[in-house]
Amino acid sequence: MFEVQIKIGLKKGISDPEGANTLKALHLLGFNTVKEVKTIRIIDLIIDEKNRDTVKKKVDEMCQRLLTNPVIHTYEINFKEQQDKGKMI
Amino acid sequence: MFEVQIKIGLKKGISDPEGANTLKALHLLGFNTVKEVKTIRIIDLIIDEKNRDTVKKKVDEMCQRLLTNPVIHTYEINFKEQQDKGKMI
Repeated sequence: MFEVQIKIGLKKGISDPEGANTLKALHLLGFNTVKEVKTIRIIDLIIDEKNRDTVKKKVDEMCQRLLTNPVIHTYEINFKEQQDKGKMI
Repeated sequence: MFEVQIKIGLKKGISDPEGANTLKALHLLGFNTVKEVKTIRIIDLIIDEKNRDTVKKKVDEMCQRLLTNPVIHTYEINFKEQQDKGKMI
């Protein structure tokens, strides 16, 4: 079993309408010191495979075929047990 | 200037339709070894304040008033420079 985390962001120069609208709404609520808002999506997968390299290859394929749009997105694949990033929500 | 990262996930027991549909789609594409898919949203903010405690308090207020739905979401606020989590996408 592997726990894999995929972090999906936008390529440089691609506009982030969700971020822009959040920024606008925050300003409307009076939070004027907020200068920038960026949104990122994270997908956590649990995969039942024995081989780490197979997992890496498969997740990469998933990203390209379904999870991301290669025209606008960048993605980063991390194995969770490697990182010791503390508890996830 | 502070860079703050808000991680928004779902409370335990709250269903994650996006994750469930992604799982279905991955199975349809033949990735049958995927057992679970969870989605998390991340919002990165750049805030122009001097005082760290003020930032913490304001971000907490933003989460409660706009960014999250306290009925279904959990959130975690992290200051980015503290963590040394490496480069973001």
